[in-house]
Amino acid sequence: MVTIDTELRGALIGTAHEMADAAREAILPHFRSQTLTTDNKAESGFDPVTVADRAAERAMRDVLQRRRPQDGIVGEEYGNSEGDSGLTWVLDPIDGTRGFIAGTPTWGVLIAVGPESGPVLGVIDQPYIRERFIGGLGTAEVAGPSGQLQLATRQCGQLSEAVIFTTFPEVGSNGERDAFHGVAQNCKLTRYGMDCYAYALLAAGQIDLVIEARLQSYDIQAPIAVIEAAGGVVTDWRGNPVHNGGNVIAAGDRDLHAVALKLLGG
Amino acid sequence: MVTIDTELRGALIGTAHEMADAAREAILPHFRSQTLTTDNKAESGFDPVTVADRAAERAMRDVLQRRRPQDGIVGEEYGNSEGDSGLTWVLDPIDGTRGFIAGTPTWGVLIAVGPESGPVLGVIDQPYIRERFIGGLGTAEVAGPSGQLQLATRQCGQLSEAVIFTTFPEVGSNGERDAFHGVAQNCKLTRYGMDCYAYALLAAGQIDLVIEARLQSYDIQAPIAVIEAAGGVVTDWRGNPVHNGGNVIAAGDRDLHAVALKLLGG
Repeated sequence: MVTIDTELRGALIGTAHEMADAAREAILPHFRSQTLTTDNKAESGFDPVTVADRAAERAMRDVLQRRRPQDGIVGEEYGNSEGDSGLTWVLDPIDGTRGFIAGTPTWGVLIAVGPESGPVLGVIDQPYIRERFIGGLGTAEVAGPSGQLQLATRQCGQLSEAVIFTTFPEVGSNGERDAFHGVAQNCKLTRYGMDCYAYALLAAGQIDLVIEARLQSYDIQAPIAVIEAAGGVVTDWRGNPVHNGGNVIAAGDRDLHAVALKLLGG
Repeated sequence: MVTIDTELRGALIGTAHEMADAAREAILPHFRSQTLTTDNKAESGFDPVTVADRAAERAMRDVLQRRRPQDGIVGEEYGNSEGDSGLTWVLDPIDGTRGFIAGTPTWGVLIAVGPESGPVLGVIDQPYIRERFIGGLGTAEVAGPSGQLQLATRQCGQLSEAVIFTTFPEVGSNGERDAFHGVAQNCKLTRYGMDCYAYALLAAGQIDLVIEARLQSYDIQAPIAVIEAAGGVVTDWRGNPVHNGGNVIAAGDRDLHAVALKLLGG
């Protein structure tokens, strides 16, 4: 059990911002560069890992080594390291590497921290736009081209009024794809291709649902913290906690979440 | 036949920038606002038109009225007006209105100018990112978060190495969808949801192909000018000029264009 007092709260928020700053600086020289190096992490399928991805995770780990050496780390690129504070940082240096190598400005740096029970603070940062969504420990805000604004999800009780996102039309397995489209076909508008940026838009009250399959903990912990701080809800397709990864449904409105969950069979 | 001398060239480029500035100013107060008003332009289907869309076209027409009253105008929102200079401006104040109402930063302001034979100058502007792609009359550049950079498409002779974009997975009719996927299934990576921003990425050498169905002249004239200035090629699915609208294939590499065109049946 970790008690987060005012001092620890300030330390965690300050550390998260410094990590996001460091990741931006590590990544931006590589974004849209013509000499981008990509390796294939998986032997089958397309899972590019860039130099930027690794440099950003190293930069974030350096910040933690200096400011929070007592915390654990789960990172997409460099694995896990144990801590003894009861808090663990969960890092995805570039969520949306396929979008990144295509030059789109909708990938992001994901940072979350919390005890085993789930994240208490999350950051979704888009370095190219210079836009940062942060939520948890009493904060829920975006800072970017329009200045600094409060985050709040919007009410939307009816599926027929909802805007829904997922990253790939194929979603996951055939069954998972069908489950997604069973919800999406009842929505007002379906859009694709945003990676973590869709969760940021949901926290900002611009869209209503994000449904994705087979996410890892580092894909979803930061979105969970940001969306919950903004008034939304994020669970797996059965309505259970999803901070350890799995099939995800995020909604800005609790009633809408319940309706969509029923269609997913949850 | 219009001869474009140095003075006219400067006037057209200056006017295009002033129009894009005016459109930015007209649109941004409405982007991600919670009170966004959308009308349904078409009785069937989903074709939202926003207050911002109309305000931006009016702002651009005001600039033309002042600086280039002798030119014709084709606009998405306010129709056509005749000119007597032999030059016509083709305007889409917000290309990607569905992306706009979802808060994504991948819609754009499209501005093109040219004689009947096609555009000689084009602008793709993304107001939220403050990023402007301009091409034609000897210029091919992007100004944005990374400063000012030259635009140049990249070489990619093989479909198996290509990154391809289209806005909607359904593309158009079933036949058009199948034609698209006939190309896409041979590519390295397929992505969705970028609207005009995909053409900008192609001009910037980040992606290799964009294939879309049933575009209007105002959807494609600015991308044509920008991409051709950057070294790419844009035609219809039979290899013919497409500045009056239709099914579009844009490629950064001429050999890749020929290969993809064959698969489209062109």
